[in-house]
Amino acid sequence: MDKKKVTVLFQPSGRRGLVEKGKTLLQAAHELGVSIESVCGGKHTCGKCKVRIEEGIFEGGSLKSRRENLSFFPPEENKFIEEKEREKGYRLACVAKLQGDVLINVPEESRAVQQTIRKDAHQTTTKLNPGVKSYYVELTPPTLKEALGDFERLQQKLAIHYGLRDLTADVSFLQTLPRILRASNWKITTFVWMDREILGIQPGKVEDFYGLAVDIGTTTVAVYLCNLNNGQVVATESMMNPQVIFGEDVMTRITYAMNDQDKGLKRLQEAIIEGMNRLAQSAGRSAGIMPEEILEMVVVGNTAMHHIFLGIDLQYLGLSPFAPAVHHSLDIKARDLGLKIHPAANVHLLPIEAGFVGADNVGVLISEEPYSREEIALIIDVGTNGELLLGNKQRLLCASCATGPAFEGAHIKFGMRAAPGTIERVRIDPDTLEVRYKVIGLEKWSDECPPAEIQARGICGSGIIEVVAEMFRAGVLERNGRINNSITSGRIRKTDKESEFIIARAEETAIGREITISTADIRAVQLAKGALYAGAKILMKMLGVKHLEEVILAGGFGSYIDSQRAMILGMFPDCDLQKVFSVGNAAGDGACLALLNREKRTEADRMARQVEYIELTTHPDFTEEFVNAMSIPHMKDDFPHLQDLLQSRSFPPSK
Amino acid sequence: MDKKKVTVLFQPSGRRGLVEKGKTLLQAAHELGVSIESVCGGKHTCGKCKVRIEEGIFEGGSLKSRRENLSFFPPEENKFIEEKEREKGYRLACVAKLQGDVLINVPEESRAVQQTIRKDAHQTTTKLNPGVKSYYVELTPPTLKEALGDFERLQQKLAIHYGLRDLTADVSFLQTLPRILRASNWKITTFVWMDREILGIQPGKVEDFYGLAVDIGTTTVAVYLCNLNNGQVVATESMMNPQVIFGEDVMTRITYAMNDQDKGLKRLQEAIIEGMNRLAQSAGRSAGIMPEEILEMVVVGNTAMHHIFLGIDLQYLGLSPFAPAVHHSLDIKARDLGLKIHPAANVHLLPIEAGFVGADNVGVLISEEPYSREEIALIIDVGTNGELLLGNKQRLLCASCATGPAFEGAHIKFGMRAAPGTIERVRIDPDTLEVRYKVIGLEKWSDECPPAEIQARGICGSGIIEVVAEMFRAGVLERNGRINNSITSGRIRKTDKESEFIIARAEETAIGREITISTADIRAVQLAKGALYAGAKILMKMLGVKHLEEVILAGGFGSYIDSQRAMILGMFPDCDLQKVFSVGNAAGDGACLALLNREKRTEADRMARQVEYIELTTHPDFTEEFVNAMSIPHMKDDFPHLQDLLQSRSFPPSK
Repeated sequence: MDKKKVTVLFQPSGRRGLVEKGKTLLQAAHELGVSIESVCGGKHTCGKCKVRIEEGIFEGGSLKSRRENLSFFPPEENKFIEEKEREKGYRLACVAKLQGDVLINVPEESRAVQQTIRKDAHQTTTKLNPGVKSYYVELTPPTLKEALGDFERLQQKLAIHYGLRDLTADVSFLQTLPRILRASNWKITTFVWMDREILGIQPGKVEDFYGLAVDIGTTTVAVYLCNLNNGQVVATESMMNPQVIFGEDVMTRITYAMNDQDKGLKRLQEAIIEGMNRLAQSAGRSAGIMPEEILEMVVVGNTAMHHIFLGIDLQYLGLSPFAPAVHHSLDIKARDLGLKIHPAANVHLLPIEAGFVGADNVGVLISEEPYSREEIALIIDVGTNGELLLGNKQRLLCASCATGPAFEGAHIKFGMRAAPGTIERVRIDPDTLEVRYKVIGLEKWSDECPPAEIQARGICGSGIIEVVAEMFRAGVLERNGRINNSITSGRIRKTDKESEFIIARAEETAIGREITISTADIRAVQLAKGALYAGAKILMKMLGVKHLEEVILAGGFGSYIDSQRAMILGMFPDCDLQKVFSVGNAAGDGACLALLNREKRTEADRMARQVEYIELTTHPDFTEEFVNAMSIPHMKDDFPHLQDLLQSRSFPPSK
Repeated sequence: MDKKKVTVLFQPSGRRGLVEKGKTLLQAAHELGVSIESVCGGKHTCGKCKVRIEEGIFEGGSLKSRRENLSFFPPEENKFIEEKEREKGYRLACVAKLQGDVLINVPEESRAVQQTIRKDAHQTTTKLNPGVKSYYVELTPPTLKEALGDFERLQQKLAIHYGLRDLTADVSFLQTLPRILRASNWKITTFVWMDREILGIQPGKVEDFYGLAVDIGTTTVAVYLCNLNNGQVVATESMMNPQVIFGEDVMTRITYAMNDQDKGLKRLQEAIIEGMNRLAQSAGRSAGIMPEEILEMVVVGNTAMHHIFLGIDLQYLGLSPFAPAVHHSLDIKARDLGLKIHPAANVHLLPIEAGFVGADNVGVLISEEPYSREEIALIIDVGTNGELLLGNKQRLLCASCATGPAFEGAHIKFGMRAAPGTIERVRIDPDTLEVRYKVIGLEKWSDECPPAEIQARGICGSGIIEVVAEMFRAGVLERNGRINNSITSGRIRKTDKESEFIIARAEETAIGREITISTADIRAVQLAKGALYAGAKILMKMLGVKHLEEVILAGGFGSYIDSQRAMILGMFPDCDLQKVFSVGNAAGDGACLALLNREKRTEADRMARQVEYIELTTHPDFTEEFVNAMSIPHMKDDFPHLQDLLQSRSFPPSK
């Protein structure tokens, strides 16, 4: 082992690695991809990079962390670290240098980005035809005989060389045009939006230029920084939607905005704009660019998130007949919304299908393209709200389901948003009822490491689906959602009011208590999956189909959904398991596609008009379908594929 | 006489009238059209409306002004008026109530708008086809079965009823759309820009809506508030260009911007934007509307004013080959420039002809329409810079003349910008050399009232032209610009270095000194008029014409130019005096026309491209022509019409 290197482990991200002795903790953090706030850029002047060193033996003795393993505490740190903090082991990451192994805790306030699991957009493949394109030109300088204006000079050249005609100019571009042209010796790269408007120029030949795709979820906001020159996603960042403090779901936020007319909406809007500015900053930092280099943004989100983002009065969204203010896709100057990216950048918002089926679902639509397929596909986008798409190239229906936030971990006793330490996978042995699980941030399963190392903190959406499905498969759960009374096990505890099933024992958790799932929690999951299932049934009736040829599970919450367990739970009608796919954050993928290929925007505009919105709540069959769908599996439907799965001896124990 | 009313005279505006006893001075000011700063709106909380009461007998005994003629000084005024000020007669206009006649001095800092003479745009007649139009519609509210978005609902109706298709929406309009629609019971007036973009809606049927035409002169800024429903100019306001403190002419301002890169330009831009916001406020106040009701703005100005207004780097405008950043007409969101009018309003800037022939000259062009005429016309726009247009429907040439600011009263010993007390008309008796003159703000000529009442303070542009022309006509001035040595008169004073001619005697002035015009002043006038004349000659050569069929004198400086005296002075080549017209601020008229009739914008775009710019300074004949044109009249040219005029016994003594 290299003696010049020491082991550094950062918590709570769990990132670890070998770093050269003598480097500061801030340098180590950068190397290991841990974001620590550092406004002054390591100049010891801002005091934002406070971290705490944890003493003790970690990782089964492989790491012995001591304060002495860092360079001495110099007087300059006193300015920022008080005596009390010093006693607790606080240091400035930009000052303290590595001399031995350390375990570093990065407190919440020092984290540059709120620690959550990232929504990854898979590297989508699409024709590269972005909204913004770059053109290199060399101009002939003006003379007294030919003193044409700078803009017209550039315009002429772009017309002759690239066939771009009638280009307009953003005023911010005109402001610096004369200086940049002359400073660059009349050789420049021009950035043109939609073959229409010049956004800006840069001296010389510029290869790489950037755009940002944004998915504003009710709970999570994810951004994908894309290189528009080659279509690559160069950075992904996410954060909790900062509006969560004003209300967890869409309706409470609408209510919040209504109760305090102008200020309420303004606060919600400022929260998301500020958050997006921070995400643009950190995505830029990851990729080594300035936010001002982001030349376009494509945004998706449900109708309420869309309206709040634009500062549109949204009180009527919550009232029947739920008409949105606007359906059309929109292009708006980023500066008009307070976004701090390129001064001339536009924000493209994908269109809205209906009051409760927003631009996020249009993102799913253009990402999965059910309208290009022969097979009848059901696409379920699971978030704080659930959206359904059903159909094929002939006809497409959409609907919204009030699932509640159970699948995002809310309203579940130990439910949490996906974050390090949350349980994301669960397996129950049908014979012993012993439980194996996996928490985010640890590679190993719970039975592969000592209990003290697991540090489980709660259970996230994908874990909730799995534990309920596994309980049913193991016979612990009856079809009606009650825990089987005839079973006696240390894992099951019954009280007067409700029963609960123990997933993690107290010694395995970071909270010093057991992590359990209660019959009330299961009830919330039943309501959520019942709504999705009933919605799918109504859409199937409307479309006149009896069987699903394909099911696509989309959603950005935590890990990908396990398709087998989603089917056992009964989130959707029976389908060949080979034809059930989990695609992650398809709404975000759609935003990336629209950013990289302008034809996808045209497609979005066309399809958003073609897809037919079905209002489920007023459908006469909905209540009956919903009640039947609460049971695990459905009370009346046939599940030939599910039966096969449950009886199969080769049931895969883990994915 | 009504005993319940008292006489109030405001200085320096000179506005007077009868006002009911018991009213405050602020109310009196409003009634008499005097602008006094009042941020708090008369609530006694801002202290901005300080005025001073002048004691004594005024207006030949008709007005006896005493402090006791105002209500007593209550303690609340102590907050804003110090003991020393109180002793000098200062009061808050919103507190002090009228009990008798008073003469009130409104100090500079309390004037809501800088006191200058207004540039009046004549009520232009044009086809009414404004950039912004209004459309009244009644919509059917959405239902659960038909829950189309608000914007699309409005869009459909406007398409069906008015044939407006593919309208886009400004984001500020979308923000309040849902609320206004429902609050107005779905009956609204929609404001649409250029059949393209919805700017906003108002509840019910709205008849009148407004736009603002703006002429940004180097020295004076004038605004014309127009009712877009009937084309009437409902208010006119002007102010000194607030950039004057950074430099009197275009070149010094360019230098100022260059010397302090970003900040210099920013300061100049902020000055004009703030000034325009104040003018929009006061024009709105005059017409009884809010600035937010101004739905569009059309702006003209020379190239430097245009660039500064937009915040465009202007350093290269001052360097050969003087290429502007942009020629095209532009439409820019008012909010992007910091203008506080309607949140969605656009600003239309007329195009630029060349580096030194700006959008102001395009305003002159579309106002005077030389391109529609058969006669060869010379149009001279006199400002701090002089611009020339020559031609007819066949061909049009333009040029810029560095006249210097003499015609605006600058660089002249007693020169002043047009303001109350400045001499605007001058007549000299050829026999006695006695002088009669008229000052702005007094109806009577100087020989019609007692010397003490005249209170002359200086001489403005039109007065300067007249005094030089009259001195020549009376034989005081020789052709070379020297004062005739053989004449002895109390009006002429000779010193070692120069001679001067006394216009106003000390007892007639407010400055306690004589107001004179010196040989140095005359030299400055010769240079200015020589440049215009020489420029006109070069253009005539280029166009191949020997005689002018029409001369149009435009310019917003003080009064209209007296065409006879302008011809005597030799501002332009010989022309039938019946064919010499003085049209006032044609640039401002052009801005009004473009505001009221969008076809004028198309005309401007087309003509700005067609008019041929001639660079005078590099023309081989310019220097010779300039030298010859310095003499009064021109050294070599024939002046048949001028000869007639000078020899005519019926020479009109005053206009």
